Amino acid sequence: MAGNSFGKLFKLTTFGESHGKAIGGIIDGCPAGLQLDLDAVQQDLDRRKPGQSAIVTQRKESDTVQFLSGIFEGKTTGTPIGFIIHNEDQKSKDYSHIENSYRPSHADYVYDQKYGFRDYRGGGRSSARETASRVVAGAIAKQLLNTIEIKAYVSAVGEISLDKDHNEIDLQNIESNIVRCPDTGTAAKMEQYIKEIRKQGDTVGGVVSCVIKNVPIGLGEPVFDKLHAELGKAMLSINAVKGFEYGSGFEGAAMKGSEHNDLYNADGTTKTNYSGGIQGGISNGMDIYFNVAFKPVATLIQEQTTINKEGEYVQMQGKGRHDPCVVPRAVPIVEAMAALVLADYHLLDKVAKQ
Amino acid sequence: MAGNSFGKLFKLTTFGESHGKAIGGIIDGCPAGLQLDLDAVQQDLDRRKPGQSAIVTQRKESDTVQFLSGIFEGKTTGTPIGFIIHNEDQKSKDYSHIENSYRPSHADYVYDQKYGFRDYRGGGRSSARETASRVVAGAIAKQLLNTIEIKAYVSAVGEISLDKDHNEIDLQNIESNIVRCPDTGTAAKMEQYIKEIRKQGDTVGGVVSCVIKNVPIGLGEPVFDKLHAELGKAMLSINAVKGFEYGSGFEGAAMKGSEHNDLYNADGTTKTNYSGGIQGGISNGMDIYFNVAFKPVATLIQEQTTINKEGEYVQMQGKGRHDPCVVPRAVPIVEAMAALVLADYHLLDKVAKQ
Amino acid sequence: MAGNSFGKLFKLTTFGESHGKAIGGIIDGCPAGLQLDLDAVQQDLDRRKPGQSAIVTQRKESDTVQFLSGIFEGKTTGTPIGFIIHNEDQKSKDYSHIENSYRPSHADYVYDQKYGFRDYRGGGRSSARETASRVVAGAIAKQLLNTIEIKAYVSAVGEISLDKDHNEIDLQNIESNIVRCPDTGTAAKMEQYIKEIRKQGDTVGGVVSCVIKNVPIGLGEPVFDKLHAELGKAMLSINAVKGFEYGSGFEGAAMKGSEHNDLYNADGTTKTNYSGGIQGGISNGMDIYFNVAFKPVATLIQEQTTINKEGEYVQMQGKGRHDPCVVPRAVPIVEAMAALVLADYHLLDKVAKQ
Amino acid sequence: MAGNSFGKLFKLTTFGESHGKAIGGIIDGCPAGLQLDLDAVQQDLDRRKPGQSAIVTQRKESDTVQFLSGIFEGKTTGTPIGFIIHNEDQKSKDYSHIENSYRPSHADYVYDQKYGFRDYRGGGRSSARETASRVVAGAIAKQLLNTIEIKAYVSAVGEISLDKDHNEIDLQNIESNIVRCPDTGTAAKMEQYIKEIRKQGDTVGGVVSCVIKNVPIGLGEPVFDKLHAELGKAMLSINAVKGFEYGSGFEGAAMKGSEHNDLYNADGTTKTNYSGGIQGGISNGMDIYFNVAFKPVATLIQEQTTINKEGEYVQMQGKGRHDPCVVPRAVPIVEAMAALVLADYHLLDKVAKQ
Repeated sequence: MAGNSFGKLFKLTTFGESHGKAIGGIIDGCPAGLQLDLDAVQQDLDRRKPGQSAIVTQRKESDTVQFLSGIFEGKTTGTPIGFIIHNEDQKSKDYSHIENSYRPSHADYVYDQKYGFRDYRGGGRSSARETASRVVAGAIAKQLLNTIEIKAYVSAVGEISLDKDHNEIDLQNIESNIVRCPDTGTAAKMEQYIKEIRKQGDTVGGVVSCVIKNVPIGLGEPVFDKLHAELGKAMLSINAVKGFEYGSGFEGAAMKGSEHNDLYNADGTTKTNYSGGIQGGISNGMDIYFNVAFKPVATLIQEQTTINKEGEYVQMQGKGRHDPCVVPRAVPIVEAMAALVLADYHLLDKVAKQ
Repeated sequence: MAGNSFGKLFKLTTFGESHGKAIGGIIDGCPAGLQLDLDAVQQDLDRRKPGQSAIVTQRKESDTVQFLSGIFEGKTTGTPIGFIIHNEDQKSKDYSHIENSYRPSHADYVYDQKYGFRDYRGGGRSSARETASRVVAGAIAKQLLNTIEIKAYVSAVGEISLDKDHNEIDLQNIESNIVRCPDTGTAAKMEQYIKEIRKQGDTVGGVVSCVIKNVPIGLGEPVFDKLHAELGKAMLSINAVKGFEYGSGFEGAAMKGSEHNDLYNADGTTKTNYSGGIQGGISNGMDIYFNVAFKPVATLIQEQTTINKEGEYVQMQGKGRHDPCVVPRAVPIVEAMAALVLADYHLLDKVAKQ
Repeated sequence: MAGNSFGKLFKLTTFGESHGKAIGGIIDGCPAGLQLDLDAVQQDLDRRKPGQSAIVTQRKESDTVQFLSGIFEGKTTGTPIGFIIHNEDQKSKDYSHIENSYRPSHADYVYDQKYGFRDYRGGGRSSARETASRVVAGAIAKQLLNTIEIKAYVSAVGEISLDKDHNEIDLQNIESNIVRCPDTGTAAKMEQYIKEIRKQGDTVGGVVSCVIKNVPIGLGEPVFDKLHAELGKAMLSINAVKGFEYGSGFEGAAMKGSEHNDLYNADGTTKTNYSGGIQGGISNGMDIYFNVAFKPVATLIQEQTTINKEGEYVQMQGKGRHDPCVVPRAVPIVEAMAALVLADYHLLDKVAKQ
Repeated sequence: MAGNSFGKLFKLTTFGESHGKAIGGIIDGCPAGLQLDLDAVQQDLDRRKPGQSAIVTQRKESDTVQFLSGIFEGKTTGTPIGFIIHNEDQKSKDYSHIENSYRPSHADYVYDQKYGFRDYRGGGRSSARETASRVVAGAIAKQLLNTIEIKAYVSAVGEISLDKDHNEIDLQNIESNIVRCPDTGTAAKMEQYIKEIRKQGDTVGGVVSCVIKNVPIGLGEPVFDKLHAELGKAMLSINAVKGFEYGSGFEGAAMKGSEHNDLYNADGTTKTNYSGGIQGGISNGMDIYFNVAFKPVATLIQEQTTINKEGEYVQMQGKGRHDPCVVPRAVPIVEAMAALVLADYHLLDKVAKQ
């Protein structure tokens, strides 16, 4: 209820604040007998961690996951998988300046209003640090889905956009650069732009795109829990996300039915894929693809005027080490959330018919 | 699990196929003692019903809701509210041509694959007729929320867009025309365009925008169940929706933090509202606003080539009476889903603090 | 949340008051492709219905179920199964005397306290009439479970107890008498006793026992959702139930481990079955058996002193036509709830391992 | 779904095996602003821990809980409370003898059947060690409920029963002896008997009773989630429990309505309390009381014949340090589960009416 769980049959519950002792979670419902590659889990965490490159926050966190239960002799046992990631770089003093003031476009003010007070250290629960737990669970979900391929990449940074769609790029190139844009030329421009933005003490938004291949036909539930509805919720639950579109998306709203309909080939595949691999909320075996819009990071290394608890105007400047642009680090998070959704529907589909 | 329920504390479960005896639902969790205006419920249903104007399907359905339980002496009793809407215009023969064939960009094919067979009469469960039940529940949710104002309207039909944002329009004008676009001039163009599209036997997509005013601060749950994440899921669960964005949306991804941050006034309101009334997943008291993209209706009154169960190519032409553009009728559905989300979070917020 | 749903994957939600227009429910999650015998559903309803014999209430209700959705060409479609049962014998005037007074050991008082007011006609939602919807859903669950045999029977009426355990009786005899006790001699005594009690305007409690045969090994979830925990909840959710025990039950608490342990045969069956077919919350393939204690019906055809809303003492005498003892009619309800639990775990077990 | 969560609004999810690195859990939904007494949490854990007296297992575990999140400046923040308890006494070698054999009346066999293999170290997830996490969460739930008093005690050990009901005993005496039976004379007999049983290498069952005072009127949900149904499930989910009865319980089944009905006093209290403080599933303000039957511990320090994975008969004798009777240590577990149920309904009741 209180919003810290995700999934129905493959269920992740997370806990932890950015500056507490540890964050972590419990995965409940992972089927027994899954041989786990724990190095692959850590690799996904490493793709998300601070300090990995020159264009992300330089905070120091090794982000090493420790599994506490649910795995025996390398395989899942069917019992809950508990895990923790210790917080190492807890410079709480960095945040003393926000104890009584509300950072613009952060959750400080609404937390105080909703809960009566807040853990003001570094954003507390509203910090994107929580997403490390999602990456752990998503990495395990990916292994459950084995043949399904989930690839996210950066398709826009500010006004610099990748002008190729998911069919025109080489997904193997995503990790070839620190921006995680599969087009090398565009990636270079994006990297340059992020560095300039950082110098200005400013931040910039961006778009992460994701393509999912080899999806079996039939994943998704009709009506409220359509596959794309759950994917949309999953993405919108990631910090800083402002929009989600799949298949033809917002452009599809401007099209005619005679252009937009995906005509069938004799084998049930479709000649076009404006549907984005989903019809009526259920996967049709074609590629699923979608875009996720991220707003610019709200913490600026610039002076801003804001208010304190007394409603007085105060000057504030971001301290600490922040990301000038979140999308490079958001790539594994988008993949993780997509994997969690698919793992859930993969299990639900096993009980769809007699 | 099987996707026919929505909500946590204010929970709607629906049943029914487009051509069965009736559709309906159960609302569980509506607090006791709410004085209901049942005429207002029927009025919202009338805004969704077929045959209401020249630009929607001419199918004949009175769509009269009958309440079976949970209401006594005009007030909710705290027990589940069961309701049904009889299907009157069940011309099942209209659909015999699709028994063995798969309509392009419909769910026919994936239902057969997922469930082994399907109720082929008029789309069965995948028909948007199901949304009538949502409108019933949403109309009750609106009454629970009383002072909160939820207004949806058409902001684009095909390539004709309303070029004003939600602050520049008069929400009282929405029902002044059959398109439900609050700008009279734009509405006239949209109406004209829909009529042309219909003559061509074609269809067109569109965008519904929604603004929610007078939202108390504090609605929403952090992490997975952020208010906008649940709104996004709610909207994406509506038939034909391809995208959702709130606040600055996809445009926000191109902005800098120094432009995008919403600076505070002394009273906790903000000078700008790129956040769309939600920070960290929790309402901040400013207007919530979002856009929902609808694809063009897949049923065309044009001949299309498709396949049958044997994988043979066959010719197909839509019969029956279909909408050339869904957005005018989608307006009350968007409002209903928004009301369901807010009602749920309104109740959840009552247990957020001691 | 509000307590009107049961089950996780095979989920029943019910609505309806005893004296409203109709009661009914929605079954969500029944797998597609199940060939249904709808006559068998009605037969179970007939075993529960009023007026079926001389020892039950003589209220007149045909209790005919009408299915509204989810079934096509005799098979489940995977979409929700909506159904209603119209209330025919709504003598609301029978209940005007309780509008302002609280019947002893009924829920009148607590409903008024919890909800602020209540639908006072015949117990409203707290009436056992709601269990008719459970019988409908349970009858479908039985068909999903096909080879599993669920048999409930009356094992005590007041102080008259069946002195044979479930291995010593012939389950085929249950329906041979109106008490539904499989031992003919004991049944005759029970019937005689119930008739005497009725003449006195009094009521009496009883025990329903249940045995479940041919249960596959592995149903149940560890920790909180143990198979017997969910069975216990299911039974305790039936009106008038005061206790539940399975296997050795309360007698087991007085035994030593050396007596109570069930030693294995070489094939994994056990020589004794004090465990009641469940170990660690998971079925072990042996017979599951349990007892359910029902209190005497609270409505007496005798004068009782009670209080009204003003806290004044008033005299009250039950009117209408009530059961002198509920256990004969409770037999199909116990079976239905057991079937719902097992159907749920049958589906959950399909996702337990890779 | 997989059974490792309990509660709806006040929700506990646990993880951990008896011989893994740690056990623990996440409490999601505890309202913000609750001032916590963490010493009281540890005190409840100490009442459950091994080695606390001469009549329980002599295993060495300090069972120290470490809180990782959700608490700031001594108060709950509204975010999830994550906690762990390290396993210290992991003598895994003690259990090598059961790797390939199935202990009688343990879950070894069904786990292997359900999941394909099992973590055989000390019962793994089926070990009662998991209940330590419940005690942590229950101790916090007690603090949320503050004025409600939940007191459990031992009322039977084998055939030695306390012959006084909950009104005749002094609840302050419960902790005066190591059996936790509030009647000193009976406690002494029980203690003596447990010591004899231990000498024989045998075990014995028992009964824990519980009384809950100062319950506000209105807790509980009608129909499936009746207060006593959820209490019953909670108790039956505790390892080794075979039965649950509340109020008049199984004895009530033998009574007449004219004896059993609880007549009202003018203030809404009742003269008798056969209802056990609950009517129609909702608390009526009178004492709630119930009994929970525990079977004898299955691990004997005696030789038993059992089978191995190959279906061959083998001899087995319990090693390690086991409880001769679980009920003294079960007392805080029963209290914890009762507190979890009440905390959940306490929160749900806040949204029952407008």
